[in-house]
Amino acid sequence: MSEPGPKPVRIGLLGRGTVGAAFAELLAERAEAVEAATGRRPELAGVLTRSQGDFEQILAGSDVVVELMGGIDPAREHVTAALRAGKPVVTANKQLLAQHGDELFAIAREAGVQLRFEAAVAAVIPIVRTIQEGFGVTEIAKVFGIVNGTTNFILTEMAASGAGYADVLARAQELGYAEADPTDDVSGADAAAKMAILARLAFHTPVTLSEVSYEGIEAIQPDDLAYAKELGLSLKLLGVAERRDGGLSVRVFPCFLYSGHPLAPIEGPFNAVMVEAPAITEVTMSGPGAGGLQTASAVLGDVVSILAGDAPVHETRTELPIVADVSSSFYLHMEVADKPGVLAGVAAILAEHDVSVKSVVQRGHGEDARLVMVIHECLESRFAAALAALEQLDDLRSRPRSIRVIEEQF
Amino acid sequence: MSEPGPKPVRIGLLGRGTVGAAFAELLAERAEAVEAATGRRPELAGVLTRSQGDFEQILAGSDVVVELMGGIDPAREHVTAALRAGKPVVTANKQLLAQHGDELFAIAREAGVQLRFEAAVAAVIPIVRTIQEGFGVTEIAKVFGIVNGTTNFILTEMAASGAGYADVLARAQELGYAEADPTDDVSGADAAAKMAILARLAFHTPVTLSEVSYEGIEAIQPDDLAYAKELGLSLKLLGVAERRDGGLSVRVFPCFLYSGHPLAPIEGPFNAVMVEAPAITEVTMSGPGAGGLQTASAVLGDVVSILAGDAPVHETRTELPIVADVSSSFYLHMEVADKPGVLAGVAAILAEHDVSVKSVVQRGHGEDARLVMVIHECLESRFAAALAALEQLDDLRSRPRSIRVIEEQF
Repeated sequence: MSEPGPKPVRIGLLGRGTVGAAFAELLAERAEAVEAATGRRPELAGVLTRSQGDFEQILAGSDVVVELMGGIDPAREHVTAALRAGKPVVTANKQLLAQHGDELFAIAREAGVQLRFEAAVAAVIPIVRTIQEGFGVTEIAKVFGIVNGTTNFILTEMAASGAGYADVLARAQELGYAEADPTDDVSGADAAAKMAILARLAFHTPVTLSEVSYEGIEAIQPDDLAYAKELGLSLKLLGVAERRDGGLSVRVFPCFLYSGHPLAPIEGPFNAVMVEAPAITEVTMSGPGAGGLQTASAVLGDVVSILAGDAPVHETRTELPIVADVSSSFYLHMEVADKPGVLAGVAAILAEHDVSVKSVVQRGHGEDARLVMVIHECLESRFAAALAALEQLDDLRSRPRSIRVIEEQF
Repeated sequence: MSEPGPKPVRIGLLGRGTVGAAFAELLAERAEAVEAATGRRPELAGVLTRSQGDFEQILAGSDVVVELMGGIDPAREHVTAALRAGKPVVTANKQLLAQHGDELFAIAREAGVQLRFEAAVAAVIPIVRTIQEGFGVTEIAKVFGIVNGTTNFILTEMAASGAGYADVLARAQELGYAEADPTDDVSGADAAAKMAILARLAFHTPVTLSEVSYEGIEAIQPDDLAYAKELGLSLKLLGVAERRDGGLSVRVFPCFLYSGHPLAPIEGPFNAVMVEAPAITEVTMSGPGAGGLQTASAVLGDVVSILAGDAPVHETRTELPIVADVSSSFYLHMEVADKPGVLAGVAAILAEHDVSVKSVVQRGHGEDARLVMVIHECLESRFAAALAALEQLDDLRSRPRSIRVIEEQF
């Protein structure tokens, strides 16, 4: 006999592609954390694939439905049926929402159940939640950004390598950043669907995909990128939704950005979205815009929000000890006597303490001589001991100064 | 007689400093939007200042309490009393939460009411909401970032101007980026309080301010910044909370970042926070980290979340028309015949259409001659008309290509 307790929450999963499979795995892995956060343990009630499972049966056995099939049919019918049956739905289906959002939101409203879709735009970047909840009553002026990772990867590679569009597309396909049929991404249609969703949320106005004008990146020439580089510009496929002339403009187009622009450094398959409003100035969010696990994480976040109902009061679940001594890399600056043997003395002390030097610059003469080093990552206690020993050297004109460094790993 | 309707929701405001005054104004300005989003119109039930108002009376007349007094006493007693009275509380008070979070969260839990605090960390950047809700069951490895705008402004100015700490601090004080007594900011104590809060949320573990080790920026020398520039490094005051050796390390320290680091471009009074986890890779959020209106916006977002209860089903509230013709700036690339008069012909057509050229580069000879221009912002229809006219020129070897440009304004 099992112990009595709150009943588990049964999740009906529609679709088991890359994201669906990652979600099933993540749900199992994080079941305990979900229970700790919401009081209810989640379990898969059933999985519908093209060849397996019966939708009616899965629906009847589910408390929450997660739709990760993609496409319009039969996702639209299934989501409709789930909402009408009073089951909250989480979906990552941008085309469904961009084309049939009005209808589906109306059904959810009527049924009084949640329809959540964080993963439909920019995967795990919490832009839907932010616009809908945190900025829900903010008078947003503009939402824009890089919402398609495939095209950003291609443009980044073209700019870096000087190669042509076709060559870079082929490479992106090999690496899994572009699909066999890349049309939806490279034409701007995928980004347009996402912008329709963001525009709807930001401006509380019914925007559908057909109202978004879009251009893709197929016509971009290596030439354009070469000139752009000279002009200090970088090329991005931008989605823009903004108030203009008393109305709304929602568009997707390739666009040059000056180098100081916050979106200019967003490279490769990353996404980034900016929100502008007088009351918030501007907020920028960036992160991976795709990936099975990252998208599944966003889906799980929505499931948890449904289970948690009202935002839970913060509760601690663990008691991690505070670790005081950690490893860091350091910059070390010493004003030294300008005479032979000083560097050797410093190096010997560092070696004694097992502290290793990554780079060293010796500068100036006489009263201005100094050593500037970057130290490889080591336990801070070890570095502190070395520093204390260095302070005893006769050949220093002032106390050594150190500042931590984060090594390049991006 | 007024029409019967849902009763307004009464907000008791404690404190009317910069943020408190901005919140009162914003609440009035956005009252309609709050009503549209939540079904209830907010109104101020009363304001407590040092010289005015009676706390007990304000509490009795409030449905929600907003604490913007700062400091520990009497904020702690007031928040405690409000929670015990079953009133949800929104606060921006980082010191209160960093020092007495355990106690206050326990009281909120017991009373079964929400205690929200988005504005306590990085103002309007929705990092609290994101970590607590979207990433609530994510196994976060690290949360780190720039969470103090005063020090980031000072470090940015020192790096740009080569001036010393004291001079730049004085300038920051003049501009309102630093307080008359800047100790809390420049010592790292303010950032430490924020990191205690973020660590608590990210790792579900009770972290208090006394467990955060911190260093400030007072000892930074212009020298260090000059060497750093040579090494391609930029200096930030970082807050870091991360899993290390089976425990947790929470620290604040000045740190050099290599130029490719996502936090390296965050300049001036801006804040940015990164969250790393295997399931999300990394997500970065940036925006203004302070400011009365920006902080008040975060407070209002929390108030709305309390009023909305479960995340509302998306609902449209307006019907903004879609504007098709907007203004843009353009890059224009033309392969032209290498003969006299071509530029004049192109310029004449642009002028006819009232399209004005910002910059022009003429390149190559003979079969390789081309004109590359950047066009000032103009209505896209006007540019399209000019482009159509250009296409009729005999002197072009191929169709002109154009790509939009976002002008430098950051």
